[in-house]
Amino acid sequence: MSQKMFERIALIGIGLIGSSIARVIRREGLAGEVVISTRSEATLKRAEELNLGDRYTTDAAQAVEGADLVIISVPVGSSGAVAELIAPALMSGAIVTDVGSTKASVIAQMQPHLPANVQFIPGHPLAGTEKSGPDAGFAELFENRWCILTPLEETDATALETLSAFWRACGSNVDTMDPQHHDMVLAMVSHLPHIIAYNIVGTADDLQTVTKSEVIKYSASGFRDFTRLAASDPTMWRDVCLHNKDAILEMLSRFSEDLASLQRAIRWGDGDKLFDLFTRTRDVRRSIIDAGQEIDSPDFGRIAVKSEKPA
Amino acid sequence: MSQKMFERIALIGIGLIGSSIARVIRREGLAGEVVISTRSEATLKRAEELNLGDRYTTDAAQAVEGADLVIISVPVGSSGAVAELIAPALMSGAIVTDVGSTKASVIAQMQPHLPANVQFIPGHPLAGTEKSGPDAGFAELFENRWCILTPLEETDATALETLSAFWRACGSNVDTMDPQHHDMVLAMVSHLPHIIAYNIVGTADDLQTVTKSEVIKYSASGFRDFTRLAASDPTMWRDVCLHNKDAILEMLSRFSEDLASLQRAIRWGDGDKLFDLFTRTRDVRRSIIDAGQEIDSPDFGRIAVKSEKPA
Ligand SMILES: NC(=O)c1ccc[n+]([C@@H]2O[C@H](COP(=O)([O-])OP(=O)(O)OC[C@H]3O[C@@H](n4cnc5c(N)ncnc54)[C@H](OP(=O)(O)O)[C@@H]3O)[C@@H](O)[C@H]2O)c1
Ligand SMILES: NC(=O)c1ccc[n+]([C@@H]2O[C@H](COP(=O)([O-])OP(=O)(O)OC[C@H]3O[C@@H](n4cnc5c(N)ncnc54)[C@H](OP(=O)(O)O)[C@@H]3O)[C@@H](O)[C@H]2O)c1
Repeated sequence: MSQKMFERIALIGIGLIGSSIARVIRREGLAGEVVISTRSEATLKRAEELNLGDRYTTDAAQAVEGADLVIISVPVGSSGAVAELIAPALMSGAIVTDVGSTKASVIAQMQPHLPANVQFIPGHPLAGTEKSGPDAGFAELFENRWCILTPLEETDATALETLSAFWRACGSNVDTMDPQHHDMVLAMVSHLPHIIAYNIVGTADDLQTVTKSEVIKYSASGFRDFTRLAASDPTMWRDVCLHNKDAILEMLSRFSEDLASLQRAIRWGDGDKLFDLFTRTRDVRRSIIDAGQEIDSPDFGRIAVKSEKPA
Repeated sequence: MSQKMFERIALIGIGLIGSSIARVIRREGLAGEVVISTRSEATLKRAEELNLGDRYTTDAAQAVEGADLVIISVPVGSSGAVAELIAPALMSGAIVTDVGSTKASVIAQMQPHLPANVQFIPGHPLAGTEKSGPDAGFAELFENRWCILTPLEETDATALETLSAFWRACGSNVDTMDPQHHDMVLAMVSHLPHIIAYNIVGTADDLQTVTKSEVIKYSASGFRDFTRLAASDPTMWRDVCLHNKDAILEMLSRFSEDLASLQRAIRWGDGDKLFDLFTRTRDVRRSIIDAGQEIDSPDFGRIAVKSEKPA
């Protein structure tokens, strides 16, 4: 199925997300031409070896020339600098979007640089893995995932519909929301889980009563689940923490309050309270599976994958 | 490969763990006869329908008569009561073991009831899923997992070797350690992760700024990873919390201390500190994969399972 939607798409940043977009654009035939730009020669060379686009340059401004869609896929802390670089070269009427995991900060960084004659529509595909770089991407990444767009007041309805259609062509469902609300929702469903995962892995790593080799050997009893999120890209997650500080601190304080209460229940042997919480949380997973956002196999289907037969 | 190791094995408790043991015993031909006992008629009937053993009874004492191996697979809070029930009927020289997730408390509960002429060897297979009951079990559960035995001072070396050989025949690697050390290690690698997972899912469930349906829709961005552990059996986990209190409280306080420091780094925008922690934790997952305790596919191989091709 080929459905050209743009004459020229410029991809600025070609890591996990950028390269997944490149692959799905090619598979679906969404662009006449794809121009790829990244900061380093090494990543650019790799993108070329992987044949991810039609033209390649480390000069972001040159990349966006004549592009009717520009997608910026760099760590959120770099979005302001990238916007400044490309602003003078943007084509009038171009749609400029990003994929950053925080939105209010990205808008604050980018908007001042962008000319009034482009359509800036911030976005965030809720799809990813713990891997990074151009080799980690794959065309199916966005399938059946949500992409959240946070249009600005001045965003043109046609441009918004065009970008939404693009993400649907990538396999995603599209939602729009307010950037502040996005940041609050994501602080809960993504940022807090990552921070907690990093923290627990850090705690285990620091312990002396339990050795590191014991932690590794016996990790299948629960701990290893957290290590996936805690293996995510450090630059990306440093930037997320720095650029969604308020919402993250709010969620962290809720979490810590609840944990103090759970700790008290353990200390005082309040079995009923423990049982109630542990029962309530079960339903949440059921709902996620029913919503098609999780596979319905024990142990994430890891056993099935390993032994190559259904568990 | 048939290798009868025991004349008669009595399984007391036939949920996820008990029924997985029953299945592997049958597959490997490890017993002349398997007698199954569980508390409720309903579970017993289901075990019989699944053809998990040779004889079935709700009378635990009757089940252990003439058995040379007795395996108790019930929530840790019930192990004392079960020991009391079966004690008078145990055969002289029988090996009595359990699979409970805590060890010092199980020993304190069971040992006073057990006669001196049986070999009591507490154990814990580090294998499980978030499902329970006799339908959830499968023969491959213990494959390539660790089983920890915590022999007592008076444990006979031959009995210990016999039980170790049984677990190896189930596919596991066997380690022995001190019960107190077991409880400390497991508090870190299993109990703390479960408690944290329950807690974060509880926090999300209580929020008002972010709706429950938003949490569910957008959960693939990190949160859903925690919902697996938080869907584990409430009775089992209430009992674990009540019966490994000291070690769990110790790990919780380490975790909270570290989290407070991470929170401070976020509040003060200390990017270097965040970057350092997020880098250090990456290696831990690599080591777990290298140790064969985790699959080496992005996103736990969930994408591969879904689209039925390698991601
Ligand atoms: N990973 C996820 O799960 C996920 C999910 C949704 C959204 N996101 C968001 O997607 C964006 C990209 O993430 P990713 O996972 O694709 O990252 P990645 O694989 O690490 O790739 C990052 C890309 O950004 C470039 N870059 C890094 N630092 C830069 C800087 N200071 N200035 C300009 N370019 C820079 C890199 O260029 P060089 O390699 O040439 O240095 C590379 O092309 C982030 O904003 C992230 O928040 C990530
Ligand atoms: N699940 C795991 O991931 C895992 C991993 C390693 C070790 N363990 C340990 O294995 C043990 C069993 O866990 P499981 O996952 O197999 O549990 P499960 O699937 O819920 O099965 C529990 C079994 O224990 C019986 N039982 C429950 N309450 C009892 C009571 N008060 N008195 C006597 N019998 C009772 C049940 O009988 P009825 O159904 O007839 O009531 C059932 O046969 C626990 O000690 C747990 O700590 C679990």
